[in-house]
Amino acid sequence: MTLNERPSALLTDLYQINMIQAYLDQAKTETAVFEFFVRSLPGRRGFLVAAGLEQALDYLENLRFPAAEIAWLRSTGRFSQNLLDYLAALRFTGDVHAMREGTVFFANEPILRITAPLPQAQLVESRLINILQFQTLIAAKAARMVLAAPDKLLVDFGFRRAHGAEAGLMAARASYIMGFAGSATVLAGKEFGIPIYGTMAHSFIETFDDESAAFAAFARARPDNLVLLIDTYDTEAAARKVVALAPRLKAAGITIRGVRLDSGDLVVLSRKVRGILDAGGLRDVTIFASGGLDEDQLAVFAQQAAPIDGLGVGTSLTTSSDAPVLDCVYKLQEYAGIARRKRSANKATWPGRKQVWRRYDAEGRMAGDILSVESPTLPSPASGGGKGGGGEKLIRLVMQGGKRVSPPSSLDEIRRYARRELERLPLALRPLVPGMTYPVEVADELKALAAEVDQRIAMQGAHAPSSASTRS
Amino acid sequence: MTLNERPSALLTDLYQINMIQAYLDQAKTETAVFEFFVRSLPGRRGFLVAAGLEQALDYLENLRFPAAEIAWLRSTGRFSQNLLDYLAALRFTGDVHAMREGTVFFANEPILRITAPLPQAQLVESRLINILQFQTLIAAKAARMVLAAPDKLLVDFGFRRAHGAEAGLMAARASYIMGFAGSATVLAGKEFGIPIYGTMAHSFIETFDDESAAFAAFARARPDNLVLLIDTYDTEAAARKVVALAPRLKAAGITIRGVRLDSGDLVVLSRKVRGILDAGGLRDVTIFASGGLDEDQLAVFAQQAAPIDGLGVGTSLTTSSDAPVLDCVYKLQEYAGIARRKRSANKATWPGRKQVWRRYDAEGRMAGDILSVESPTLPSPASGGGKGGGGEKLIRLVMQGGKRVSPPSSLDEIRRYARRELERLPLALRPLVPGMTYPVEVADELKALAAEVDQRIAMQGAHAPSSASTRS
Repeated sequence: MTLNERPSALLTDLYQINMIQAYLDQAKTETAVFEFFVRSLPGRRGFLVAAGLEQALDYLENLRFPAAEIAWLRSTGRFSQNLLDYLAALRFTGDVHAMREGTVFFANEPILRITAPLPQAQLVESRLINILQFQTLIAAKAARMVLAAPDKLLVDFGFRRAHGAEAGLMAARASYIMGFAGSATVLAGKEFGIPIYGTMAHSFIETFDDESAAFAAFARARPDNLVLLIDTYDTEAAARKVVALAPRLKAAGITIRGVRLDSGDLVVLSRKVRGILDAGGLRDVTIFASGGLDEDQLAVFAQQAAPIDGLGVGTSLTTSSDAPVLDCVYKLQEYAGIARRKRSANKATWPGRKQVWRRYDAEGRMAGDILSVESPTLPSPASGGGKGGGGEKLIRLVMQGGKRVSPPSSLDEIRRYARRELERLPLALRPLVPGMTYPVEVADELKALAAEVDQRIAMQGAHAPSSASTRS
Repeated sequence: MTLNERPSALLTDLYQINMIQAYLDQAKTETAVFEFFVRSLPGRRGFLVAAGLEQALDYLENLRFPAAEIAWLRSTGRFSQNLLDYLAALRFTGDVHAMREGTVFFANEPILRITAPLPQAQLVESRLINILQFQTLIAAKAARMVLAAPDKLLVDFGFRRAHGAEAGLMAARASYIMGFAGSATVLAGKEFGIPIYGTMAHSFIETFDDESAAFAAFARARPDNLVLLIDTYDTEAAARKVVALAPRLKAAGITIRGVRLDSGDLVVLSRKVRGILDAGGLRDVTIFASGGLDEDQLAVFAQQAAPIDGLGVGTSLTTSSDAPVLDCVYKLQEYAGIARRKRSANKATWPGRKQVWRRYDAEGRMAGDILSVESPTLPSPASGGGKGGGGEKLIRLVMQGGKRVSPPSSLDEIRRYARRELERLPLALRPLVPGMTYPVEVADELKALAAEVDQRIAMQGAHAPSSASTRS
């Protein structure tokens, strides 16, 4: 079930198709510019991480209405022939500008811009948001876990409680990007080449009359990278069984690599189990913990120096359970060469095609961003920023005329870039409760553009009732 | 992208396949019984609603490893030939017992039971949880909304912020089951026959130089069930434009059916807009509201008698944002004819094959459940319950030998059943903050079985170290 292997253009909202009908009837097919951004950071997040771009580009490159979908649309009796013909021939022919996957970003900074004929740019809104929000959400959550447990082996255990199959797969991908070692989800291994991890379940132990017999049977069946689950009945007793079993397994050429704890007070139990294993000569056997973990518990393990070497994180990761949603939007910025902006109560946004410029301090850490109108040179910031000059443009052309400008990035490339981004985070943004609000300045030129758009809207409003007509 | 149309058996956790290797090596392929249940109700939920069974049965009926997946498994070098041969031939041949979709249920009550050869029953765990948790979560959330806004037209607007494509589609399905009128997601219309709804976006208005011109253009393109979005710039001014436009549209044979508000104080704005429309002779034009709504806001609208006729609910529905996860499990209950149970700290469960018996009061409302060992007759409850006799068995055989025992239920059948279930809810469970904990008693026979299993485990524990062996 590869994402986008069988694309459906019907993964959209009905209003997009309704609007396309009106656009076609009005010959409103000039170039539109939309940007995707997050209005505010959720929960205790001090930053987010862009993710999902490759899937978004796959979607755009493969966008089409298969004949069966056109036939179904026709069968509803809702749509006229000119619309059906347009949809049947539709391909995405626009440009995409975006931040690289793995880029740290902040509120109001666009991470993706679509420049395309209006009907195309409108149609793709629903699925682009659907793809980008979820992976970005999970990448940001995974980043918190990586920062809370920097030297641990982290594994995604969360497929089962992810919201459906695609969410499970994409969470495996987004967490791997951010530095997880891998995932338990087998299909994520096949589809993305992500390393897969797995031990055994409690049910395995329970089907045996004897826990040691279960361990021994598993060891003989899966001797490589052998990890035994020891909390089914009595964790300490099971640790002693592991000690008793180890020499016999060794005689058969099998090495126990680790034990897994999945319940109870993991700090206390990990110390007791470490003691039992060490006393039994099993100093090289690692301790892997799982069971309802989140980044706060990971931080507790680190603070208390619990002897835990690896962690399986499930539900909290794959649902971003403390903040399962981003306040994200895909907004019209420009149509037919004119900047646009919505003025709805509390929802006004910055108009026009935008660029994000990032400056770094002497240690190479992020020092502040400028949100500006797209232009080849660094803008003048509103409040005397930009001192020291320089600045990195975060938004780059990635698709032109419906085709990628370069081959898809490999997952490991993205992963290396994301690691560098975490290294460049301001120190105050590394804790789970951020110690600062990262400075994002709005350039003067952008403020001027917004004022100009508002003035135009105000003038239209004054004239609107008189110019309204069913024939306009 | 129909769910299960291209089944992948690799939508599972690696440990399932590891365990199957050990089961095959040990010839442990006798019948296992697993049950899926929720350990505790999340958030302010006083009940849950079973959903996703049809997708679970589709998955089981279509379960197989395509040749490409076997080839990939072989390429990893992890798996032995006997395992690959077993997987290549694998079909689900077991039985399934389940509650009907749309059934109200409570903590510790199984909603699905798998009875199958151990390797099969183990393999399907990950995906079954993945399917059942999500739809159950959304059905329960949708039920809260339906109860909070009993006479309103409710529409799912949440595809874009659902966690991926499958989540968006399945949320449309689960909310429709519970009484939503339909969804904005076009593919949900094609795949499930769910009614689809859609108006226009702010971007549509913004691409015109004039709001009234935008309304008129849309009206001519989509004259059926015409709803105009009026909050892009100034909601009251736009309502007056609608009043001005209506007679001209009427002359062209077009009737405005409604207006949509998507921002601001919806109680205040709906009253003002209602006043403007009524004063302009548009008493039949309905008001549809959307924009970050959840069941609490729906309840406020009802309490304040806001003149809102329909509601588009998005993110809070499709992510169950206040409680995005169920504490649900799929647990081994029996293997080779012997009841099983895990004793991990705070995670002990009731063993054996279970049935849920439900009693009703004189008004036909749910009065209490009994969780019992599966048996043909009503059990004796622990605490003198069952008085008055009778009781309905909620768990029924739905698949035998890998085949459904009856054709799939239609969505409208399930929907009617779910409506009846909501009607039968205890009155104290209807408010958003439940006024009671629904009584679920554990039958004496089940307590006795649990004690028996514990005793057996304790005896094994006493003997375990001496019986452990790499050859066992």
